[in-house]
Amino acid sequence: MPPQPATVYLEDLSVGDEFRSGEYQLDEDQIVAFAREFDPQPFHTDGEAAQQTFFQGLAASGWHTAAITMKLLVQSVPLGGGLIGAGGSLEWPRPTRPGDTLRAHCRVLEIKPSRSKPDRGIVTTETLTLNQRGETCQRLVTQMVVMRRPA
Amino acid sequence: MPPQPATVYLEDLSVGDEFRSGEYQLDEDQIVAFAREFDPQPFHTDGEAAQQTFFQGLAASGWHTAAITMKLLVQSVPLGGGLIGAGGSLEWPRPTRPGDTLRAHCRVLEIKPSRSKPDRGIVTTETLTLNQRGETCQRLVTQMVVMRRPA
Repeated sequence: MPPQPATVYLEDLSVGDEFRSGEYQLDEDQIVAFAREFDPQPFHTDGEAAQQTFFQGLAASGWHTAAITMKLLVQSVPLGGGLIGAGGSLEWPRPTRPGDTLRAHCRVLEIKPSRSKPDRGIVTTETLTLNQRGETCQRLVTQMVVMRRPA
Repeated sequence: MPPQPATVYLEDLSVGDEFRSGEYQLDEDQIVAFAREFDPQPFHTDGEAAQQTFFQGLAASGWHTAAITMKLLVQSVPLGGGLIGAGGSLEWPRPTRPGDTLRAHCRVLEIKPSRSKPDRGIVTTETLTLNQRGETCQRLVTQMVVMRRPA
């Protein structure tokens, strides 16, 4: 895509535009801290006990992967008015593991100007959260409220 | 629903079964702390600046609402083998606000025994995250991997 302006508004976006984030290093302590607060299950909090579970080893909560993805998007998708999600769908095709380095690739799938509110539109994007081997740990398709450039 | 056993397996579930969580009190400090780490945008981190935004006041990150919902589910849906999400869809029909008391209502929508793996199935649930006025802050429909009772 062309060099990005500092701030992107609805009229600057085209279907197929891509945004690539920086990297996020994830270690066991972060995985366990998040899980103790929000998803306290042995496969997310206890590396030893996790061996005997579905995940066969410590895995990050899917919601942790989602939260990290949001951070990567905030840093790399410079939408005027901010990143405001109305909803979306999530898949976690493989676990996020301690030691993973995550990055997000976001692609514009659809742009729908609002009929009732001319200052905004709904933009559908697909964001893949990739690990250091380029494997997809999360696929997120989301509808975002994107503002037009203020007059 | 009937009194819940300590642990629920695939064969214990029926379409229409409901689980109701306890409550989670959310204050401004928690909202700001989560957002600084994962969703650093003014409407989630700065009550003053948030007034001038889409949200017209401080709102929790949708991913914070999702993470809190997971905690409420872990405490109230006693699945043997744990709560393991394969994916799902999310909507945030209204913001979660400082001072909200959240609770989750989870309902079984569909149960599909696995053909290839007889020890498990995929259970689709709908979880509404409600505030203290009974308004829905999040609707989550998720597919979970649920294990049968071990032989």
